[in-house]
Amino acid sequence: MGGGEIVNADDYEDARCLGGLIAREGWILLNGGRASGIMEASARGAKENGGLTVGILPGTNAEWASEYIDIPILTGIGLARNYINVLTSKVVVALPGRTGTISEVALALNIGKKVISLNFDLGLLFKKYEGDKQLIYAKKPQEVVDLIKKILKSDFDKEVEKYD
Amino acid sequence: MGGGEIVNADDYEDARCLGGLIAREGWILLNGGRASGIMEASARGAKENGGLTVGILPGTNAEWASEYIDIPILTGIGLARNYINVLTSKVVVALPGRTGTISEVALALNIGKKVISLNFDLGLLFKKYEGDKQLIYAKKPQEVVDLIKKILKSDFDKEVEKYD
Amino acid sequence: MGGGEIVNADDYEDARCLGGLIAREGWILLNGGRASGIMEASARGAKENGGLTVGILPGTNAEWASEYIDIPILTGIGLARNYINVLTSKVVVALPGRTGTISEVALALNIGKKVISLNFDLGLLFKKYEGDKQLIYAKKPQEVVDLIKKILKSDFDKEVEKYD
Amino acid sequence: MGGGEIVNADDYEDARCLGGLIAREGWILLNGGRASGIMEASARGAKENGGLTVGILPGTNAEWASEYIDIPILTGIGLARNYINVLTSKVVVALPGRTGTISEVALALNIGKKVISLNFDLGLLFKKYEGDKQLIYAKKPQEVVDLIKKILKSDFDKEVEKYD
Repeated sequence: MGGGEIVNADDYEDARCLGGLIAREGWILLNGGRASGIMEASARGAKENGGLTVGILPGTNAEWASEYIDIPILTGIGLARNYINVLTSKVVVALPGRTGTISEVALALNIGKKVISLNFDLGLLFKKYEGDKQLIYAKKPQEVVDLIKKILKSDFDKEVEKYD
Repeated sequence: MGGGEIVNADDYEDARCLGGLIAREGWILLNGGRASGIMEASARGAKENGGLTVGILPGTNAEWASEYIDIPILTGIGLARNYINVLTSKVVVALPGRTGTISEVALALNIGKKVISLNFDLGLLFKKYEGDKQLIYAKKPQEVVDLIKKILKSDFDKEVEKYD
Repeated sequence: MGGGEIVNADDYEDARCLGGLIAREGWILLNGGRASGIMEASARGAKENGGLTVGILPGTNAEWASEYIDIPILTGIGLARNYINVLTSKVVVALPGRTGTISEVALALNIGKKVISLNFDLGLLFKKYEGDKQLIYAKKPQEVVDLIKKILKSDFDKEVEKYD
Repeated sequence: MGGGEIVNADDYEDARCLGGLIAREGWILLNGGRASGIMEASARGAKENGGLTVGILPGTNAEWASEYIDIPILTGIGLARNYINVLTSKVVVALPGRTGTISEVALALNIGKKVISLNFDLGLLFKKYEGDKQLIYAKKPQEVVDLIKKILKSDFDKEVEKYD
């Protein structure tokens, strides 16, 4: 998740790089699907590395989707779709953004998802979740991927335990 | 689209066969994602033929998705997700179902989508749309695929005309 | 529930009369909130008789609400709001309409709500629900009100039984 | 808007007092409708002062609504309903809460609504909106009401200007 607005070059490159790493892991990249900002950058990185991309769009028109989105889901429910973004994601990664991204971080934490912030300073507002390790900060795309692997492994181990 | 309830063997085979044909065309199969009835049958047919399947689920739990769904979208918005199903589909195909399927046919026609009914008798209620060729009846899965091709070609031609 | 399109004079008067009767019972009238067709007529009837009206609007702009709606709920979720209409209603009354109204009837029956059709012929598609008395036909607004009273009394009796 | 969790006595009294003041202005109080925390307190205050209360509930069951809610809207769309809360509100008031409330503040600012924070410290994350006077801090319920009056008057003046 991240801003649809114009982003600075570093954030753009981080998003693109992260998209590429996600693709190379064989994971599906999901974002808000629009043709701008962090969304476009991450989808672009994934496509440049042979990945599969899903975009959950607020509107009803496929033309709003980024060209780097393979599967545009047209929700027609406006910003209410932010809830679907985080529900559907196994792990939520937040890059710098504004209110849309903040709402996604808040909703993700609310429903118990792990959130990794890649250089998006969320200030004191979500401090409690840092203590609980539900919100984790990273500085580099590769760190994010390493964290996701740990989270997926831990989730897998919990599933296995159920059947032990 | 089609019933999540138990279906008769003919409808199940039609759905499975249609899923297979869709996959072989290289199209993405999208349905409601649940592990039952027509939904499961069509996704199964697609996977048996190397296709890609997307399921738009009403709930918040990925475990409700059919094993034949590659990309489960967890909407958490209940039956309001029926609107997303038809918005996201380029063409809607309705197989026998009950109220859920009827609501999808109605919403699809409402927003101007073409609907192909494969042996699902919708009675007089949508008669007007038959006259307008927005609602078309088919008897065999292959007929459905032929109709979809015509619709996609006609949509493509209209797009091209815009730039002529 | 009923068409937002232009309606014939009889249906308009039925909707207006029903809105008035609902208001005089002290019940809240809920509909799709738009300034046209059956929606406007029923809200108008309710306001002419001192009632309270709630409109669940598809869009984000209060100016789309009928002037007869006291409480416009702006959902911004398009036709996905049809699900909210029927979930929130204790009893659903369907007047003549098109695909929007049909989708509401289908969703209402799906989630177990009683549906009263006031001169809206739903054909054979929902026949099963007539046998189960979940879908009931009425010819006059007063009949609808009498049916609603019976349904509310039966619901109330079931609640009371729980505590017996 | 505010937490559904247990709140401290001061916040509870602020919410209850604010609900009362809103009711005495003749305004409708809208919140998330649940029977706990700030939501219940504000609805209670409104009802104790003869107000009208609307609750936009996440679930499908009216029994989850606070007893102080006159009009429970059952959305069935989970936390996606937070978007409806802020779309439908003319002015959004945020009292202390957690992620749900933060998501509402973010969504409200995103769609251009004025947000008044009553003793809910949002930190640096929304600083930009303070400069734009879209986010305003208040310390007492009466201050909130005075601010709302100013906002409504300014909105009204802008409407009038359109027709000048």
